[in-house]
Amino acid sequence: MHDIAINEKIMAKNSAFAEENRSLLAKQGIWAINLISSPGSGKTSIIEKTIESMGGEKKIAVIEGDIQADLDLKRLSRFNIPVRQINTGRSCHLDAHMVHHTLAWLLEQGNIDILIIENVGNMVCPAEYDLGENMKVSVMSVTEGDDKPLKYPAMFHASDCLLINKTDLVSYTNFDMERARQNARSINPDLNIIETSCTSGDGIDQWLEVLRSGSAHNPTTGAADAADR
Amino acid sequence: MHDIAINEKIMAKNSAFAEENRSLLAKQGIWAINLISSPGSGKTSIIEKTIESMGGEKKIAVIEGDIQADLDLKRLSRFNIPVRQINTGRSCHLDAHMVHHTLAWLLEQGNIDILIIENVGNMVCPAEYDLGENMKVSVMSVTEGDDKPLKYPAMFHASDCLLINKTDLVSYTNFDMERARQNARSINPDLNIIETSCTSGDGIDQWLEVLRSGSAHNPTTGAADAADR
Repeated sequence: MHDIAINEKIMAKNSAFAEENRSLLAKQGIWAINLISSPGSGKTSIIEKTIESMGGEKKIAVIEGDIQADLDLKRLSRFNIPVRQINTGRSCHLDAHMVHHTLAWLLEQGNIDILIIENVGNMVCPAEYDLGENMKVSVMSVTEGDDKPLKYPAMFHASDCLLINKTDLVSYTNFDMERARQNARSINPDLNIIETSCTSGDGIDQWLEVLRSGSAHNPTTGAADAADR
Repeated sequence: MHDIAINEKIMAKNSAFAEENRSLLAKQGIWAINLISSPGSGKTSIIEKTIESMGGEKKIAVIEGDIQADLDLKRLSRFNIPVRQINTGRSCHLDAHMVHHTLAWLLEQGNIDILIIENVGNMVCPAEYDLGENMKVSVMSVTEGDDKPLKYPAMFHASDCLLINKTDLVSYTNFDMERARQNARSINPDLNIIETSCTSGDGIDQWLEVLRSGSAHNPTTGAADAADR
């Protein structure tokens, strides 16, 4: 972000790829979410819980974004669903161009209902890059503290849905759930906030409803999708 | 990181400012640490605990790096020590140029022994930017999972010391301390690893020893400092 002209050029290129991704996904009836959080908030556990709890109701594919390594891809291999790794190298976020390169692979999988893109663990830059998703979902865990929406507002501002995760640990911390909700809503009054725990199962049904309802309303053309946004 | 030539130019400029910062700090007898972690790992709590536990033994100043807001600066105001806020705006890390702008303020405070720079909460990009510090210290909390060194190796590779924090919560998680240590050492065999908790006080004495010993050996000229690195 050192040079405004360079930044604008990067963002314009990203937006063009994002619109192409969104249009192509919509034509295939694939509803996509972009999952964003800091490292260790529980994104992969939420994906595991989602696949387990949904059974075969929806056909899910996953793109795993990581700086390097494929630990999360290996974690998901037991589910026998389509999973693809993107290693970003030194880049601290996925961008629409990287996702664009996975689309041919995705289409080969046939009849996918929901694409979950797990972004690189980072509360800052991923929020700025539209990947062509239908919904941005952010995750924060109670162990990170209730002040995070005020310190990293971009992620909360850009998201449609916030999962406040690891609620099973809340009684061991000084996390104030009401204050966290107020902080998040002060940045984004329209945020759909769900309290979740992959250990206790809290809130998972509510989260699955968001996925069901989103994917059920998936437009079948890119044009309709763009108009919805 | 989209363009190698731009990136090299940014890094060269950063290194020049970092060397100038390091030389100036050394001349003043100020020993500086750069504290890096993901959001909510407990960096500010460690600074609070450090100031409380050190009493008046060393004169400490703090630079708070945040995207926006000054919540951590306000948390530290009760200590009546010199604290300065840097808001990075859309940038996901501090750089040496930003720190350079605070040096006149720092020198005005007189006889500072230790400067603690709390970086923006992010495990990725802060690791690449030398600020002119004498020691990079990374923090990971047990609630983030023991796989983090393998997924975000740059931070662990660049650091001299790692604090594995929030050990009071370890029994409520599936965090394996031995595996975490092995993962961190596989990236950086020389890493000084200390297990800490600001709630129970575990490991704080060991951490203070690192600060005492580092600041006691602080060179008095930039040249000597550069040779030590």
